[in-house]
Amino acid sequence: MTILEIHNGVVERAFRDSALVVEGCVSLSEFNRWLDERRAVTKFSVTKTPLADLQGWHVEPETGNLVHKSGRFFRIEGVNVTTNFGPTPHWMQPIINQPEIGILGFVTKKIEGVLHFLVQAKMEPGNINTLQLSPTVQATKSNYTQVHGGNRPPYLDYFLDRSKARVLVDQLQSEQGSRFLRKRNRNMIVEIDKDERIEVLPDFIWLTLGQLFELLLTDNLVNMDSRTVLSCIRYADGVEYVCAASTAQEDFRESVYVSSTAVDTMAVNRMDNIVSWLTQMKTQYELKTTRVPLKDVDDWLFDGDRIRHKDGKFFSVVGVSVQASNREVGCWQQPLIESGKGGVLAFLCQKMNGVLHFLVQGRVEPGNFDCIEMAPTLQCTRANYDPQHPESFPPFYETVMGALPTQIRYSTFQSEEGGRFYHDVNRYMVVELDTECVLELPDNYVWMTIAQLKEFIRFNNYVNIEARGLVSCLGLKRPPTLRARHLHHSLCPT
Amino acid sequence: MTILEIHNGVVERAFRDSALVVEGCVSLSEFNRWLDERRAVTKFSVTKTPLADLQGWHVEPETGNLVHKSGRFFRIEGVNVTTNFGPTPHWMQPIINQPEIGILGFVTKKIEGVLHFLVQAKMEPGNINTLQLSPTVQATKSNYTQVHGGNRPPYLDYFLDRSKARVLVDQLQSEQGSRFLRKRNRNMIVEIDKDERIEVLPDFIWLTLGQLFELLLTDNLVNMDSRTVLSCIRYADGVEYVCAASTAQEDFRESVYVSSTAVDTMAVNRMDNIVSWLTQMKTQYELKTTRVPLKDVDDWLFDGDRIRHKDGKFFSVVGVSVQASNREVGCWQQPLIESGKGGVLAFLCQKMNGVLHFLVQGRVEPGNFDCIEMAPTLQCTRANYDPQHPESFPPFYETVMGALPTQIRYSTFQSEEGGRFYHDVNRYMVVELDTECVLELPDNYVWMTIAQLKEFIRFNNYVNIEARGLVSCLGLKRPPTLRARHLHHSLCPT
Repeated sequence: MTILEIHNGVVERAFRDSALVVEGCVSLSEFNRWLDERRAVTKFSVTKTPLADLQGWHVEPETGNLVHKSGRFFRIEGVNVTTNFGPTPHWMQPIINQPEIGILGFVTKKIEGVLHFLVQAKMEPGNINTLQLSPTVQATKSNYTQVHGGNRPPYLDYFLDRSKARVLVDQLQSEQGSRFLRKRNRNMIVEIDKDERIEVLPDFIWLTLGQLFELLLTDNLVNMDSRTVLSCIRYADGVEYVCAASTAQEDFRESVYVSSTAVDTMAVNRMDNIVSWLTQMKTQYELKTTRVPLKDVDDWLFDGDRIRHKDGKFFSVVGVSVQASNREVGCWQQPLIESGKGGVLAFLCQKMNGVLHFLVQGRVEPGNFDCIEMAPTLQCTRANYDPQHPESFPPFYETVMGALPTQIRYSTFQSEEGGRFYHDVNRYMVVELDTECVLELPDNYVWMTIAQLKEFIRFNNYVNIEARGLVSCLGLKRPPTLRARHLHHSLCPT
Repeated sequence: MTILEIHNGVVERAFRDSALVVEGCVSLSEFNRWLDERRAVTKFSVTKTPLADLQGWHVEPETGNLVHKSGRFFRIEGVNVTTNFGPTPHWMQPIINQPEIGILGFVTKKIEGVLHFLVQAKMEPGNINTLQLSPTVQATKSNYTQVHGGNRPPYLDYFLDRSKARVLVDQLQSEQGSRFLRKRNRNMIVEIDKDERIEVLPDFIWLTLGQLFELLLTDNLVNMDSRTVLSCIRYADGVEYVCAASTAQEDFRESVYVSSTAVDTMAVNRMDNIVSWLTQMKTQYELKTTRVPLKDVDDWLFDGDRIRHKDGKFFSVVGVSVQASNREVGCWQQPLIESGKGGVLAFLCQKMNGVLHFLVQGRVEPGNFDCIEMAPTLQCTRANYDPQHPESFPPFYETVMGALPTQIRYSTFQSEEGGRFYHDVNRYMVVELDTECVLELPDNYVWMTIAQLKEFIRFNNYVNIEARGLVSCLGLKRPPTLRARHLHHSLCPT
């Protein structure tokens, strides 16, 4: 890339242009036919299996930890947690320990001048619906060093070999701090030359960003790994964001989802003030998470079938047996985390100074790398709260769940990573408050614009995966002249 | 602050304006007389004392760790380090463990419209010259919760009570990763109302930023804590940086030290590419630092007098007895770290696209919070290398140390924190290469502009304290019309 291109923001404009195209080298209806076809040919079965019977996995006698015989992949261990944040000062829990940094990455390529993303229809054992759309590559280090003796994931070299593709996005991003111990993955987007021939394997398809935003309106289709990578994208200055859902609500889109990418422009809080808010939080709140043997974790028990909380709360570790046709290994068994039902991830937002602001929560979770990360306004699981005691519910629960239909700007059900979580579906919501509404904010909440959130995402370990997943659902507002733009090709070039 | 002020960048302009004023409410010669006076009245003596004789400190029998009887302040413990970075894959060493977040903060106030910093002439036991200029407040949590039974540091409430002052800077920043275990301090600048009366205690004085830059030309005067706070300041767009030293080299200043604050403008690497470089480093390099009892640390011994490496390399832990007139506690004893001599911290820089670029090193140090931080081009201690084996010297050692006088843009001796380090003086250098010179960069080096470095400083745990100390020595280029500006007051208002 030349200096001139850098100054012109060529990368950010390429992303913007792709986001404005809803019909790419395949149309959405062609995509749907392709997906139906993939679903039809994907042979796949998952059955729950007692943990004690999982082949390749065993409980370490001295620790009680659940580990793979290779010593690789991930381990279920225990942590002892003390914190002065929130109502519970001390607890113990199982946690996933997987210290390797994996790669979640899209290969992209300009087709007819528009950046297309090579998307995979991927089976994961925890998916409620077999196939979801994943990045081109979704690889743990164990994957690509072939610990499990499977095939090397296709397209991996574009991420490992810098001479083969240009890097557009490459960030370390955190995963669920309530489930993983300081887990981070490398979120990447690379671009290959428009003239490079690349074989599109049967499970893969080229889509534009605009198409991915449309597909984010469908429940449980664009997977968690895709969402986190998409959240890292920065667009050219001057774009306006729009909730994907509002394509069905034309009126709202026009009037509401307007937010410049210029940091601090029209924001009610300067970046430096938000940094200060976070500094105050990190100083005030302490988190001490210590690894302990799983057998020493109070209140949790392993009954041979699953590892569960004595009250049936929070989550369980369960086992599954998998038979699949399109994975590196055709059949295997593994543990998965099964969470309580009724998860909600929601942003409250409000127009201030003419720009939409999002209410961000500073949140301590045991597996966080640096104590606090920025979370959605509401991040909770209904099953963990006693309906008899509504006062125990988290702040803004009623505001979100009691929102009028006219306030709901986005509402879908999205799945968390099916390689680790079993049928883990959260409701993703964006709720807009009237401009007259004045909220009382607890200390750990702050208003910020989407431009500011994106700025924090760039510098890893600031914005948690739940918030990033919601941010990824915000598309770009399409100027009327561009709305109908699509490419007139029914077949992708290879 | 109103929204309008935010948009006008009022804070960044206030910093810029202060940086352009070299004569504030006191002149520099008045300052010098004041400092001489403070030196004369400060009764102060430090004598080395065997560690075994330190009152209040003892060696824990079961661990060998050196701890205070209160269990607070800091502890000297051991760490076991394994890494695939650098020539040494495994070692053990003593380290300072002080998990509290302290406050380093300047109180500022507009006097005659120009922001002045309330600077303290402060004695620290490790200082080679008794008094150095510290921030208004330099307080560990032990300090301000008064574990040692001393007086509460003056002006502390301006930092603890948000209603008393406006926060201009408030960031968590790391300290020496080779000496501290994941230590961070809160770097703050607060502004009080211009009409607020505030008592200026005898050890304190109001100085402008421009004056502080001038004083950074003097050896061992502006202390480490001041330097790290100053490095966090962001200026209004369009300013040009200048090495403080170049006030003595007018020609160079005019021609060379030009760097816009606009991120990515004319930079040879985009921010996203630098983030990617760092992501690659964090993925490639592993660091495992485990706390171990000091008595189990191989190759180090405690001989009753000091804790030292068997070959006399790296550093020792020594004891001192202190008698002082102007500290919270009049007399005490404590351990300090005494490092090998001949420390050098240097940036190589070079003009590219008309903008000065700095050669930044990605560096793994055992106490780093997140494996890698950005360090100066050269950060080393001569005493640790065998002069018989120049090939063992770090990259760019010869380029820096063999620089011609005409290439040296800045060169002073500066002290590291005298509350923890004994007579720890490093040579701080900025060396400029000819534009024709083409350097071969090892993988862990990257060119960036000062604007980009400042952007990373804002998001904590990116830029190490050695690099920040050097950045703080870069003043602003003063337009000719402003060069002589000073305020005509010989007495500060209270």
